[in-house]
This record gives sequence, structure tokens and C-alpha cells, in this order.
Amino acid sequence: MSAAPIGVYDSGFGGLTVLRALRAALPTHDFLYLGDSGRAPYGGRDVHDVLDLAEQCTEHLLASGCGLVVVACHTVSSVALRHLQRRYGGAERRVLGVTIPAAEAAVGVTRGRIGLLGTARTVGSGTFSTEVHKLATVEVVERPAALLAPIVEEGWEDTDVARAAVSRYLHTLGEVDTVVLGCTHYPLLRRAFEAALAPDITLLDPAPFVAERLVDWLSRHPGFAPPGAGRLVARSTGDPIRFAQLGARFLGEPVPTVEFLAERGGQLVWAEPGGPRGQVVR
Amino acid sequence: MSAAPIGVYDSGFGGLTVLRALRAALPTHDFLYLGDSGRAPYGGRDVHDVLDLAEQCTEHLLASGCGLVVVACHTVSSVALRHLQRRYGGAERRVLGVTIPAAEAAVGVTRGRIGLLGTARTVGSGTFSTEVHKLATVEVVERPAALLAPIVEEGWEDTDVARAAVSRYLHTLGEVDTVVLGCTHYPLLRRAFEAALAPDITLLDPAPFVAERLVDWLSRHPGFAPPGAGRLVARSTGDPIRFAQLGARFLGEPVPTVEFLAERGGQLVWAEPGGPRGQVVR
Repeated sequence: MSAAPIGVYDSGFGGLTVLRALRAALPTHDFLYLGDSGRAPYGGRDVHDVLDLAEQCTEHLLASGCGLVVVACHTVSSVALRHLQRRYGGAERRVLGVTIPAAEAAVGVTRGRIGLLGTARTVGSGTFSTEVHKLATVEVVERPAALLAPIVEEGWEDTDVARAAVSRYLHTLGEVDTVVLGCTHYPLLRRAFEAALAPDITLLDPAPFVAERLVDWLSRHPGFAPPGAGRLVARSTGDPIRFAQLGARFLGEPVPTVEFLAERGGQLVWAEPGGPRGQVVR
Repeated sequence: MSAAPIGVYDSGFGGLTVLRALRAALPTHDFLYLGDSGRAPYGGRDVHDVLDLAEQCTEHLLASGCGLVVVACHTVSSVALRHLQRRYGGAERRVLGVTIPAAEAAVGVTRGRIGLLGTARTVGSGTFSTEVHKLATVEVVERPAALLAPIVEEGWEDTDVARAAVSRYLHTLGEVDTVVLGCTHYPLLRRAFEAALAPDITLLDPAPFVAERLVDWLSRHPGFAPPGAGRLVARSTGDPIRFAQLGARFLGEPVPTVEFLAERGGQLVWAEPGGPRGQVVR
């Protein structure tokens, strides 16, 4: 493992769909993925909770040697990215997100009316609309789709339940020409989306655009993450066995190593899974 | 408000379906409901997290004057009740749960094969099966139904999504004669369950049995919770406005007062909603 892997932070598993695109675009870089699956989902949490969790995870990745942290989660990118950039960004380390690449990609393909589905927190922030409107005068509709991530985590993405839910959520967007998958779980529902969408509507997974922008950024700032040997280590605040099992579906290949992290005093630290912690051992 | 209301603790909103049954059975008692909705759902959390959260919530209710705490959540009852009873129970205060009343009710109606749907954590504990087998030699099948609570929280209980999901989960139980709603969200899906079940299969909501057992218990231990004036106060660790809106659907009537609780140093305390807390203010 390189001494300075690219850190990728997500509330759980979904960011592995972004990591997949990043590794395809940067095959010789090393990656350290942190999935906060023990405290997910973030989508219904209040803003202060999300900021607190995002700080803990970002600090862990920086303390692990990452000079560059990619926030792969749309909820965290929408709510906390500016805060993380102000707090941790500087001459030697940077924090990048997924919202601006998603907005750029959507503006590049829309004919005037963009729809985004995401978590309640992502949609409530209005960050995607704000970023789109910095780039173009187009209409943006954002709607929450609370059930889609749980449906994917249940492994039901190719069922009648998934198709009915996708259809209902798309209906809430009204007439749009571009649908942005504003949560990193949703690419696994691609078939359900394609079945429900008219052929002239563009379905947009931001992940390849996030990777494209990162390649471009690294070409201009190579010192933040030198190439390594294409290695990957994942760390999770939840059950590491479940993480490896479920994670493989998101990553599209087995997750090689999953290490368990526990929270102690507001920081994430290595710990034996299942060991005592918190108030229980007072 | 009585100085010693009955405390009712749940991970979020679901316990309001139990509270509804308790208030119907004990109309002159005062109730203090604590919904940990800011940290819900519990169902995917590890056991140590659930124990930690359950301790914080129980301690808050006891510190608020409750001599009797009813754990209305099947996940907490299955995983943490024994621990809470050992830690906090005594001559002046008691902690009761929902699993034993659910088991007694199921044994009372089954013809030999009981199925239970609940959270992954409830099912994984095997507590319901253990309690049934203390009472009778019957078969018990427990299966996780991760999507049902989110479907209810989305307000989709009377949709094609709900009916398809209920049907799929019922299928995982195989041939049973009694189906136990092992999560306090599921009574709102009663119509979807009834539509999917053959008429000779009994659908069992444990809430009325929990209330019946509590009335019986209080008749033998009246000192733990004297009658009051039928008042209700709710406290929530999440957004109190959302709690009142969503809660009314579970309680079947408006939630009169919702107070916001924040976590500080492992304890729940009153706080202004949206105020700074946690690492963000370091």
C-alpha cells in the first residue's frame, strides 16, 4: 500500500460504485475506502450529525496518510463538503466531492429540464440545484427517494418491488429530459430505471464523470496522490463480514481486505469486531 | 403530568402503535414517550450500539421520574431487555418489554407453526423463538423484513410497493398458520398483509396483548405507576416537527407535545433543535 492512497469516504456501501469508476480510471493508484456502514444510513439524520460523522471519517483518512479525500456520498457532499474543505483543505491535503461533477455532467446533456432523485438530506440541501444554476439557466427538480437505497441493500434491485418504487419516484419528477442518479446506490437499479424511462430521457450516473474530473484534477495536482500499485483496502464501522459480502455487489468484484473501525471519544480507531465499547463497559 | 408517568421507549415512531394500545387500556395513566428517531433505525446496528442507545434512553426515562419503562421496540426488547432489567430493575423501578407478550399471544392462537417478521437484529437474536419454546412445543420461523418499516415511514403502506414487499416476505416464512407482526411499524401494513394471507391464517399484532399484560401487571404492582390524568408527552432525538407529523399516523391521533432531546456525553438532555453540538463546535 502506498503511503499516500486516495481516500474515498462514504456513509456505507454505495460509494463503492464510485470507487469502481475511480479504480477503472486510475488503475495504478492505491485506494483506502472508508464506509461508515455501522452508522448508516445518513439520509434521515440532521445536519449536525452528518457534519460530526463526516469530520470523524475525514480525519481518519487524513491521519491514515491520504493527501486527497474523495467524498463519494451525495448526502455528505451536499451537506458537509464545503465545511470539510474549509476545515481540512490546504497546501498538502484536499477534499473533493461528487455534487459538482454531477451538476457539470447533467448540464452537459440536458435539453432544459433536469430531475434528480436522492436522499431526503441531499434533496433538502438544494446543493445540486445551486451548482447547476451556477453553470446554466435550466430547470432542476429534486425529489427524495427514501426507499431506493434500502431496496438495493436488500438485494431486490431486479424485482417487482424495485420497478414499482422506481416508477413511483420518477413520477414525482414530472416532465424531465435527464434523470440524475443522486445517490451512489442507484446505479444498481439501472435496469429498473431503464424499464421505466422513455427512450428519449437520459439516465445519468455521475460516477464516471467524478472519475473523469479526478483524473483531470490529478494531472494538475499530482503531488496529492502519487501512483502506487493499484491496491485497495476498505475499512468499515459496521460488521466487516457483511461489508465484504454486500460490498462486492457494489464494487463489482470481491473486496480484498475489510478492517473494522470503532468510535472512541469522537474518533475512529481500529478495534476487534464485536468487542465491548460505549456505555456498556462503564 | 403525573410525577411518575409510564415511560415508553422506542427507536423511533413504531412504538406509538404500542402506546396507542396502552393508552386505550389505561386511559387515566400519564405517559412519557421517548422516540430515538434521530438515531433510528436500530435494526441494522450491532448489539453493542443497541445496548448503548437503550441504556441512554432508559436512563433518561428513569431520571424523568418513570418508575416503569415499557420497551415498545421489538429490536430493543429482543436484544437488550434482559440487560436493561438487570441494570435498572429493582424494588422501585421496572423495565418491561414486548417479546414475552408476543410469544404468549402467538402460543395462544397457533395450530403448530408460527412465523414472525421483524428487523434483522430482532430475527438474529432468536429471542422470540426462545420465549415461544419456553411455553410450548411448536415450530417457529423468524425472517427479516428490512424494507417494511421504511415503506411505512414513506407513507406507502397502501401501494403496490407495499403489497409486493409483504407478499415476498410472507413467502420466506413458508407454511405457517400464524403470522406475528414482530415490528411496531407493521400494524400500519395490516391491509397489505390481509390481502396476501389466506383466510385461515391468523395475523397477530402483539400490541393489544402487551397492553393486556401491562394492565394485569399494574393490578399486582400499582405502586410503579399510579393513575394520573391521561396526559401524554413525547420526546424525540430527531426533528420534533417531523416526529409530530409522522407520529400522528402511528398514534392514530395528533401527538400533543414533542420535546427535542440531544446527546451530550452519553446522556440525553433537552436542547434547542438545530443548535450546535458534537465535534462541530470543537
